[in-house]
Amino acid sequence: MGKEELKIIGTSIKRVDGVDKVTGQAKYAGDIVIPGLIEGKFLRSPYAHARILSIDTSAAEQSPGVVAVLTGKDLGDIHPYLGRGQRKDQPIIAMDRALFAGHPVAAVAALDRLAADEALGKIRVEYEELPAVTSIQEATAQGAPLVHSFAPGNICVQEKLEKGDVEKGFAEADEIFEDTFEFPMVYHYSMEPHTTAAKVDEEGITVWSSNSHPFGIRNEIAEVFGCPFSRVRVIVPFVGGAYGSKSGCKIEPLVIALARKAKRPVRVVQNVSEAMLTVRRHSALCRLKTGVKRDGTLTAKEAQIFLNTGAYAETGPVVTRRALTRILGPYRIPHVRAISSCVYTNTVSAASFRSVGGPQTAWATESQMDIIAQKLRLDPVQLRRKNLLRLGEELKPKGRPLDADLFKGLDKVVHTLGWDGPVTKQGGGRGICFGVTDPGAPLASTASVHVLSDGSIVLQTGTVEIGQGAKTVMSQIVAEELAVPFGRVTVRTIDTAYTPFDRSTGSSRSTTVMGKAVQLAAQDARNQVVELAADYFEAPLDAITLRDGEAVAAGKKISYGELIHRHFAMQGGELIGRGYAHSKMAPNPPDPLFWETGIGGVEIETDRETGEITIKRYVTAADVGKALHPLQCEGQDEGSAMMGIGHTLYESICYEGGQILNPSMVDYKVPTFHDIPHHFETILIEDENGPGPYGAKGMGEGGIIPVAPAIANALFWSTGARIKELPLTPERVWRALKEKA
Amino acid sequence: MGKEELKIIGTSIKRVDGVDKVTGQAKYAGDIVIPGLIEGKFLRSPYAHARILSIDTSAAEQSPGVVAVLTGKDLGDIHPYLGRGQRKDQPIIAMDRALFAGHPVAAVAALDRLAADEALGKIRVEYEELPAVTSIQEATAQGAPLVHSFAPGNICVQEKLEKGDVEKGFAEADEIFEDTFEFPMVYHYSMEPHTTAAKVDEEGITVWSSNSHPFGIRNEIAEVFGCPFSRVRVIVPFVGGAYGSKSGCKIEPLVIALARKAKRPVRVVQNVSEAMLTVRRHSALCRLKTGVKRDGTLTAKEAQIFLNTGAYAETGPVVTRRALTRILGPYRIPHVRAISSCVYTNTVSAASFRSVGGPQTAWATESQMDIIAQKLRLDPVQLRRKNLLRLGEELKPKGRPLDADLFKGLDKVVHTLGWDGPVTKQGGGRGICFGVTDPGAPLASTASVHVLSDGSIVLQTGTVEIGQGAKTVMSQIVAEELAVPFGRVTVRTIDTAYTPFDRSTGSSRSTTVMGKAVQLAAQDARNQVVELAADYFEAPLDAITLRDGEAVAAGKKISYGELIHRHFAMQGGELIGRGYAHSKMAPNPPDPLFWETGIGGVEIETDRETGEITIKRYVTAADVGKALHPLQCEGQDEGSAMMGIGHTLYESICYEGGQILNPSMVDYKVPTFHDIPHHFETILIEDENGPGPYGAKGMGEGGIIPVAPAIANALFWSTGARIKELPLTPERVWRALKEKA
Repeated sequence: MGKEELKIIGTSIKRVDGVDKVTGQAKYAGDIVIPGLIEGKFLRSPYAHARILSIDTSAAEQSPGVVAVLTGKDLGDIHPYLGRGQRKDQPIIAMDRALFAGHPVAAVAALDRLAADEALGKIRVEYEELPAVTSIQEATAQGAPLVHSFAPGNICVQEKLEKGDVEKGFAEADEIFEDTFEFPMVYHYSMEPHTTAAKVDEEGITVWSSNSHPFGIRNEIAEVFGCPFSRVRVIVPFVGGAYGSKSGCKIEPLVIALARKAKRPVRVVQNVSEAMLTVRRHSALCRLKTGVKRDGTLTAKEAQIFLNTGAYAETGPVVTRRALTRILGPYRIPHVRAISSCVYTNTVSAASFRSVGGPQTAWATESQMDIIAQKLRLDPVQLRRKNLLRLGEELKPKGRPLDADLFKGLDKVVHTLGWDGPVTKQGGGRGICFGVTDPGAPLASTASVHVLSDGSIVLQTGTVEIGQGAKTVMSQIVAEELAVPFGRVTVRTIDTAYTPFDRSTGSSRSTTVMGKAVQLAAQDARNQVVELAADYFEAPLDAITLRDGEAVAAGKKISYGELIHRHFAMQGGELIGRGYAHSKMAPNPPDPLFWETGIGGVEIETDRETGEITIKRYVTAADVGKALHPLQCEGQDEGSAMMGIGHTLYESICYEGGQILNPSMVDYKVPTFHDIPHHFETILIEDENGPGPYGAKGMGEGGIIPVAPAIANALFWSTGARIKELPLTPERVWRALKEKA
Repeated sequence: MGKEELKIIGTSIKRVDGVDKVTGQAKYAGDIVIPGLIEGKFLRSPYAHARILSIDTSAAEQSPGVVAVLTGKDLGDIHPYLGRGQRKDQPIIAMDRALFAGHPVAAVAALDRLAADEALGKIRVEYEELPAVTSIQEATAQGAPLVHSFAPGNICVQEKLEKGDVEKGFAEADEIFEDTFEFPMVYHYSMEPHTTAAKVDEEGITVWSSNSHPFGIRNEIAEVFGCPFSRVRVIVPFVGGAYGSKSGCKIEPLVIALARKAKRPVRVVQNVSEAMLTVRRHSALCRLKTGVKRDGTLTAKEAQIFLNTGAYAETGPVVTRRALTRILGPYRIPHVRAISSCVYTNTVSAASFRSVGGPQTAWATESQMDIIAQKLRLDPVQLRRKNLLRLGEELKPKGRPLDADLFKGLDKVVHTLGWDGPVTKQGGGRGICFGVTDPGAPLASTASVHVLSDGSIVLQTGTVEIGQGAKTVMSQIVAEELAVPFGRVTVRTIDTAYTPFDRSTGSSRSTTVMGKAVQLAAQDARNQVVELAADYFEAPLDAITLRDGEAVAAGKKISYGELIHRHFAMQGGELIGRGYAHSKMAPNPPDPLFWETGIGGVEIETDRETGEITIKRYVTAADVGKALHPLQCEGQDEGSAMMGIGHTLYESICYEGGQILNPSMVDYKVPTFHDIPHHFETILIEDENGPGPYGAKGMGEGGIIPVAPAIANALFWSTGARIKELPLTPERVWRALKEKA
């Protein structure tokens, strides 16, 4: 199909889930009612680290309304450990030790939540408190207490990237810059906290969950409970945001174990505080040493990255590996040595979060670029241009060459921002930073498209609608390929008993990878329609045109429904198209499938009395290949930038004495509408050169990355205050300004 | 695959739904609980025929616990008429007239059934009673009151079959036999009465129903309520028998309309009495005139068939057409004229019932064969042999030639019964009769087979497990084709939101037609596995063997799961096989897809004091092409024969003054274990010549047909009493013996 013919792709059609959501009709996991459903609650460790000497559940079991009380001792017949990659280190409930304050040590299922709460208070746990570490500094100190005996130095994993000869690179440099940057622990704050209902019966395990990896958790649950994939059914109704917080099993296995013991369906609806005790982003410490020639040419970079992964590995190993390339920036650096360490601490496990390792490392690299520019008396945009990789150059050793024209994006941001230097005429600050990353975008999606005998089209896809607009985009692809009105396409709720496999929703993969599978499935269905039409019209295949739900040839036409009806002996019928996105879809080298580009440009004002930063203007650019639904792309990019504003100005989970000080939305501030930049603009770059359908690339993660260094650099240029630790709270800014003065 | 390699097909493997059913874990439609579910009940007309002058629902609406009261007046915005084929004559609730005693005229939805019952009593309906007809004789009499003004003479449809010159045939005959036979109204008595739960919300219409045509009713409901197929979701949990009583919409649209008005999910669970007011088999009156030469050669046959279809056409037109060929018997008759009339009466609508029109017409034809044999002093088996069609001969004009070797079957029954004439040495009677029919077996099935990345196999098929063992047989086909252990295959519950289309479960079509779709889907999946294996082993496709869930080549092997995993970039994955059975599967001429063969042989004793008939021995033979699961085939055939024993000896819905006298299992007797023949044997004929998978033909309907004439003939030969009206109750037999004496 020539691109000039696209009718639905590229339009910002009304999103299909909008009305249900704004009218409150959309059903989320917490709205599910199952016959006999009871409520579950978790008892959490008050200690950051403690040996569990005994748990006496007898009083709780006798408590009114209690159906079951579960501890680690109930799990002898299963394999109760989670953990992706090399580390299966995470029991689904604390076994012999509690490893962080908030660690579930027991669970109660009762007729209602009050009864469950009351019973929690009757569980007697005898602890022996152990020394704990919560920060990277504590955990990596000499002689630090160990979180896990199998991990000396509290190092979960360590990854290394080397290129050229870094010593030689530093020898060639005129100046060497050494800086250390810190990035806070932050919380995803998806509007819906983790919620799971589970039942275990003769049909196997059924789970309704707010999760963005329905098939991933199906597989994990099958492994934990020792059954085939076909006996685990995961149903995902509407999901109220995820951002990585719902990637892979979170509370699901524990809720299942509780339902199994209770012999009744159990639901656990967490509140925000509990969700904050479930997962967070990795805090980071990055030490950078960069060699530069006097003209600004980068010669060498040495990086030490430490990521605080909390009590368990979770996706820490992936984040650790990805951080290695993300710290490079999109720059030509001949000599590199980077070491990334995943560090265990006695805190909530950290896991995936919009652009894993991206904001943490760009915070270091892109902040330092402006330190360099200032020292060398270069315009920071000029410094970047000097070192910026061109389309087709190598960013990651052995990786796929850069597939985005970063100069084009930079030019657009520069132009839109009206850049004439890092300080405005009014004395405000400006910053422009990059966030170019190799998203995971793992392959492995399958989809089916069904043409019913009344011409209705049904799409079965495992991509979770987490607010990103996937249902709408996938429907657009199907309607476009099958040449039917958009409204004819229905996307079914995900139910792993029926829906074909998808690897996950996340890693900027859905439009590109699942989109491809959906496109192929639609084309497969389309080809079948064309065959039936050719048969009906007694015409060659290429004489058939599909238009508006009808096959047309030589001036005659017939509806798809009628074709199917005839083919199936006038008895109804259905055509099933299937599509796979798999290893053969990938370029060679396959990683990354595409480069994700975020460019952020900002203009700020700083109140020197209070330290408060005001964002006057924010421009964000994303190379999306092709915007299948421009409005949604813009929404994604703006949302991503807003989230970046959160960790830049406000957000940080604060630990003291092993305890989170601010585990609530009152004490943990996220940005609101009030915090939207006064001028906020998104630029979509569409070179139609992505591996996804119609040339699309993944997007939605790039926008979050450059925010913090752009704002910090703007602050730096306009006030002279260089802050290397986030968030840039008024207090911290005020102190830096004071120090400077 | 050579048939010698079959491993699972042809074995009587343990049925997959057995344990759930015998342990009570199986969930039926009545077990479904939906949040907010309330209970519905119908108010039924006390009159056989009445004009509804007014319905006052105001008191009922005020009754405690009542949520909604519905009458025909609430249906102005939909198209509330059902009816397949040419007659859309059946409103989903009585509109201006009640057409039979028991006709729903109003419906109540209330918080519980007692409240609904109480409210029913508060609905005031003003009727004007109208003259009614209940029997064929009444309905077809001169000047009979009309059930529908559009149907003069109360004839719903009339069908005709002519061949040769029947006058010439009678002229060539030496003897002409004229007899009239009557067949009673009978009730299906599936153990689960009609049960439906429905909800209408922003997702569309969702129905949980005990129905054997999930897609058929999806389409009917979509038509009634004016929405696309994709907005109607029909979920069919376990079903407790059907036998045709759950073919097409029964109470579903009315329950949906009630839920729509109540704005809450509504469930209607009928009891047996209500189910008997919902559907039944067509009673029949057959007049036969048959010309025979002295040596027994049939020369001509003239038949007049009348079928009492009750108040609405329902599937009456289909039954009427099928009766035309079914009355012929599997005999060579050069000259035929048959007219079949579908007659409206003021009784419960008649519809599909195991072998539509088969038992009614064979009752006439096969009874008369023995009347002829006796008159001509021929052994009745000899008379049949003389006229029996051979393989490949024409039975139905322009129809597919006979595809069964009936002589082979007859020989087996004769041998097994030890036939040496129609009277035993002890004075008992014997009969052997045929039931050869052209089952509808309409084409149009689709299925998908999914190979998951742990090697589990999931089958999605729309065939309803109604007790016939379909889940087991379909699983066998999948396991056989994919070369996996039987236990790896899971069949999903039917949910039209996800499950691919199937025309219906019935008409002996599932194993043959859906079985073919399932086989093709499994082969499609198999081919994909083989491709992946060839790729992996770098071997040609034909070098790959599949065995026990592994692909083998040159002594090396790899599991299906591992192949999928590798193909999908080590991220999981799934293979989707699809299969269609459609018009191109049919032979030419396409009707019937296969001939269904039932041969029944019986030996009885009659108590001359009481008139009670005892079945000493019953032998039934079915040409099944290939028995995919021999034990289930035998079970089907025996069950079919037992059902035949029901209408032969016990069953009849008795009307008097327009009212059913026996609408309960107390007054309406069905056969029980006590009534099983002392010796009961099933012979399966397997010539592997059917159009279904592995040469299978449909079966399960043939066994019911020959029972009644075989027993009546045995009675006739052993006692001289010829009874032409069923059932052969002791009273009727005793009176006939008295008359004879």
